[in-house]
Amino acid sequence: MARWVRYACADGGVGFGVIERDQILEHTGDIYGKHSPSGKVLPLASVKLLCPCAPSKIIALWNNFHALAAKLGKAAPKYPLFFIKPASCVVGPGAPIERPMAYAGKIVFEGELGIVIGNACTDVSVDEAPLYIHGYTCVNDVTAIEVLTADPDFPQWSRAKSYNTFGCIGPAVASGLDWSILRIVTKVDGTERQNYALSDMIFSPHELVSLLSHDMTLLQGDVIACGTSIGVGSIREGASVEIAIEGIGVLENSLARQR
Amino acid sequence: MARWVRYACADGGVGFGVIERDQILEHTGDIYGKHSPSGKVLPLASVKLLCPCAPSKIIALWNNFHALAAKLGKAAPKYPLFFIKPASCVVGPGAPIERPMAYAGKIVFEGELGIVIGNACTDVSVDEAPLYIHGYTCVNDVTAIEVLTADPDFPQWSRAKSYNTFGCIGPAVASGLDWSILRIVTKVDGTERQNYALSDMIFSPHELVSLLSHDMTLLQGDVIACGTSIGVGSIREGASVEIAIEGIGVLENSLARQR
Repeated sequence: MARWVRYACADGGVGFGVIERDQILEHTGDIYGKHSPSGKVLPLASVKLLCPCAPSKIIALWNNFHALAAKLGKAAPKYPLFFIKPASCVVGPGAPIERPMAYAGKIVFEGELGIVIGNACTDVSVDEAPLYIHGYTCVNDVTAIEVLTADPDFPQWSRAKSYNTFGCIGPAVASGLDWSILRIVTKVDGTERQNYALSDMIFSPHELVSLLSHDMTLLQGDVIACGTSIGVGSIREGASVEIAIEGIGVLENSLARQR
Repeated sequence: MARWVRYACADGGVGFGVIERDQILEHTGDIYGKHSPSGKVLPLASVKLLCPCAPSKIIALWNNFHALAAKLGKAAPKYPLFFIKPASCVVGPGAPIERPMAYAGKIVFEGELGIVIGNACTDVSVDEAPLYIHGYTCVNDVTAIEVLTADPDFPQWSRAKSYNTFGCIGPAVASGLDWSILRIVTKVDGTERQNYALSDMIFSPHELVSLLSHDMTLLQGDVIACGTSIGVGSIREGASVEIAIEGIGVLENSLARQR
């Protein structure tokens, strides 16, 4: 298993590498293809971690955990139900979540497992799916929840979830991770708010990659946010949200204080 | 007014230029910035036109024409209602529309005006909006209509409209176009199916760029599909859909015959 990160150095250069304890082993080449260690080792604390991938789109699932479906009184869906978050909303670990200028309502966190696509794929089977997965990451699918239901004729999934900084991803992409034995733990200002088993997922990552690749081509770096489970809630200005999955790390983002 | 196109030559090279009658005046430089004629002139018939821009996302409006809102019995919305179509669904003029492998239902055409963003913008005013518009194009917002309503709990706007080849754009981006005096005419196999005035729009292009730029950063090449009006319908395998706006040209795409 390796934990891949992308980072910016103090001199502005951008690199990628593998985390080893509190260091990064810099690599050169293609993060998804041929690469090798450059020999350079950087203290983790000396760099700014970036979003570990550069998605062209985030496909974000709704109603993909049995526990949340039961709580909401919804049947398990027959196929993945999703909306799309654009690349423009993506930020990495540590980046502030910014309140949209014209929105004074509740802002909600949703801790999720993210699948990062390693190779473009179209119409692949469940068995082939692992060949196209680079690894797994943490996602905070931030939502301006009052926008979602503001219009009686049209649920605004895309608008509520596409504001700049509302797609928090990171800190690393873990390849070779066995997600099925892991849990997601979300904390707000240190207090646990979500703690759920990934094995409760309705459509598994391999099923999602297969099914969604029949809906559209998945591109290198694209992220599938697997949906959240119980415990989502709103955050106040200044609050810190930490989403942790063992083997990936902790994704931390705070809601910026008002300007 | 200029009509910008992107094209592939027989040798595989990709270029851009301005249409003059049945010729293309090749340009070099940045289609959105500094550019100049190369001196080379190509017969239009000698190249394959591509999508005239490379959007990172398509923001597609629902319920943005008074006539269609009245027909559906819907109130005019208070703000633009939209879903997102990903870059992976984009094709240019002449490209076949492909039926998704697992979908046997109706496929619907929707003729629309597309706004092409020329410069990235965030939180811009209506007055500033024209500075960020490269020009206007035609969009066929193709839809697997039975997918949209297949789940009782979740309208699948993104899935129904994001299949590969379901975002037809082109043939040109017309800069300096006065959209307000123009009509969209959609024909299927030569028979007129839509003919509506763009002046019937609820949110105008300048309002859309301003309002949507407050929802997310609009990037160079991004497309806002302004929504359709009355006359949408389904197409059979082999049917040719032509969407025409004077000053832009005719966007033609056919539904591929079954493989």
